[in-house]
Amino acid sequence: MQENKKIPLSEPYFFGEEKKTLTDCINSGWVTTSGKYINLLKNKIRLLTKTKYVSLLVNCTSALQLAIRSLNPNQDDEILVPSMTFIASVNAIFYNNCKPIFLDCDEDYLLDFSKTREFISKNTFKKNGYIFNKKTKKRIIALIIVHAFGNCVKMDNKLINFFRKNKIKIIEDAAGSLGSYTKLQNKIKHAGSVGDIGCISFNGNKIITSGGGGAVITNNKEIYNKINYLSNQAKDDILNYKHDEIGYNMRMSNLNAAVGYSQLNKLKLIIKKKREINYNYYKNLSKTPGLKILRENENSYSNYWINILRVNSKEYGRTKNDLIKFLSSKGVEVRSIWYPNHLQKAFINNQKDKTVISEDLFKSSICLPSSYSLTKKEILYISKLITSYAKKN
Amino acid sequence: MQENKKIPLSEPYFFGEEKKTLTDCINSGWVTTSGKYINLLKNKIRLLTKTKYVSLLVNCTSALQLAIRSLNPNQDDEILVPSMTFIASVNAIFYNNCKPIFLDCDEDYLLDFSKTREFISKNTFKKNGYIFNKKTKKRIIALIIVHAFGNCVKMDNKLINFFRKNKIKIIEDAAGSLGSYTKLQNKIKHAGSVGDIGCISFNGNKIITSGGGGAVITNNKEIYNKINYLSNQAKDDILNYKHDEIGYNMRMSNLNAAVGYSQLNKLKLIIKKKREINYNYYKNLSKTPGLKILRENENSYSNYWINILRVNSKEYGRTKNDLIKFLSSKGVEVRSIWYPNHLQKAFINNQKDKTVISEDLFKSSICLPSSYSLTKKEILYISKLITSYAKKN
Repeated sequence: MQENKKIPLSEPYFFGEEKKTLTDCINSGWVTTSGKYINLLKNKIRLLTKTKYVSLLVNCTSALQLAIRSLNPNQDDEILVPSMTFIASVNAIFYNNCKPIFLDCDEDYLLDFSKTREFISKNTFKKNGYIFNKKTKKRIIALIIVHAFGNCVKMDNKLINFFRKNKIKIIEDAAGSLGSYTKLQNKIKHAGSVGDIGCISFNGNKIITSGGGGAVITNNKEIYNKINYLSNQAKDDILNYKHDEIGYNMRMSNLNAAVGYSQLNKLKLIIKKKREINYNYYKNLSKTPGLKILRENENSYSNYWINILRVNSKEYGRTKNDLIKFLSSKGVEVRSIWYPNHLQKAFINNQKDKTVISEDLFKSSICLPSSYSLTKKEILYISKLITSYAKKN
Repeated sequence: MQENKKIPLSEPYFFGEEKKTLTDCINSGWVTTSGKYINLLKNKIRLLTKTKYVSLLVNCTSALQLAIRSLNPNQDDEILVPSMTFIASVNAIFYNNCKPIFLDCDEDYLLDFSKTREFISKNTFKKNGYIFNKKTKKRIIALIIVHAFGNCVKMDNKLINFFRKNKIKIIEDAAGSLGSYTKLQNKIKHAGSVGDIGCISFNGNKIITSGGGGAVITNNKEIYNKINYLSNQAKDDILNYKHDEIGYNMRMSNLNAAVGYSQLNKLKLIIKKKREINYNYYKNLSKTPGLKILRENENSYSNYWINILRVNSKEYGRTKNDLIKFLSSKGVEVRSIWYPNHLQKAFINNQKDKTVISEDLFKSSICLPSSYSLTKKEILYISKLITSYAKKN
């Protein structure tokens, strides 16, 4: 039965309310960048993330771009970023004519704060209240923290305070982490709400979708105002079309907000199911030698929007690529995790620091089907395919 | 009666089909960057514009950005652009780290080809098959032609051929000109289909809307492929997340395409009404000394998405700003036309060439309410307000 049906990697699920809110949009005549659902979605995100300000944008790439732009970077300023992230986090740096410094992650695919601390102490110096890179003599203006695959980074409060004191802003790429939480000094914080700016995605493959969309969350009014201004073509005098800065056309439409709002109403339900899916994969796969399903770390409450399987090819007897080919041939849509960005053709000449774990993880990890609609039976089917494919020595 | 009701500048109109196509999207599960309506809208635009390739994007700003990016510009390459345009045309140049050279427009708010020809012959030189700017010694790689306010530029075929031979690509900003046509050597061509790349907007204030959205039209397969590749994060190996270039997240969602498709089905009807609105303004206002409603030129079939009133303040006895204030106070939403871009704070240090008409037009022109829903009675009401406000000497 299952073999004729393709099991998708991560598809959205609609509960029905979306049709009502969309119809309401059309009836109201408000479909573009103003309207009821823009405000409803904003407020709901504010309440969920416990942040003061939310800006809704066309996607999370734009959120990351404007997050950096709101810091008023100079050309060739540098930004610390984990190599293990979707390319949008790095592209956003280049859109702003800044340069990345690639950092490594830990075994949880998350920024390694101890390596970051070491990089800062060995490779930078202070001058005029800023931190500079010894190698390039360029200023470091931000750190991007990526809460990868729904899991939250274990925050290093001391290092965060050091960054705060030294004008290194913290941007959290929480693209896939809506509904995920982290601990900071025993306080439970929503992903993206710890640093200066958080960026969230509502792309179709994420925990909830708005068709296309993203959000910036922040407690900093100045940053919020700047992002609003920039996302709306930097209008200084609307009646006369005067714009004092180079702005962008990046606001979310009310249509997309309507879908996002309806979906957000179901977030608890979705996360409950996603956590069950993760547990079932874990239960089915963890006894097979060489297989490891990513679980939340002790500091993280994960939304588990996507499941990551790590393959130790010596123990499992098959490589990651073997397994991808095998599962694909069986109609199970799987993918590699992100290619380390320090190896991407466009970024290869940029500075990197001990990015060995990122490379190891890439060689061994794949994304498994994780849609809300995935049944226990399908998880069992996929799990059996994987365990039976192990090559006994 | 009318005085209590605000008459909007340009609001979208929905016919009902939008609700059906949106519901269909949700039922199908396809809401992001794939789906039936993406293809339906693409095909419909291809047929309408008689172009080979259509790429659907999040908005027209993105269309302009990728149009330039698809030419593989070098840093500081220069692009000719009329000063009289919405700021997005110029921002798109800066997003690509290129520089604008501002040109003037004619009395129809459209690029003045004779001044452009003069600029080329006096201020540029040829080298290695390219045209260079004498003043800056930088290469000129493109000309942006703006079909402003639905009206089409009178194309200068000779100059276009000269540009073609000298590797200056022609990008048409047809943001507001869906359904507008121009003549080229006695052939009727849709706005945006004459040059190498045309850019169309489906913003809420345009002739039709998709909530938010834009399109690139072209007959050049290489440009089309490049824009598709770049708009989808430059994916070279999807399974392994390898990206060889810095890409962008700019594709239109199926949701937005569904609305755009429904609206495009009504384009003929909308344009018929828009042309009536223009004629009624013309009829009501043209007898008053000092007032002139913009009409299509002999080479243009205009969609009249928005109406432009030019005020000769000596003859009319009131300035443009007086009239804007007066109409606003009466609940009639009006705006200035675009501020000339060579005067914008962010662009003031860039090169300009004889941009006097652009400045004159800005000082004297306003946009009048032009929505599809505007009634004859409302047009009469607005017209009477305007004519009665004339100050007799």
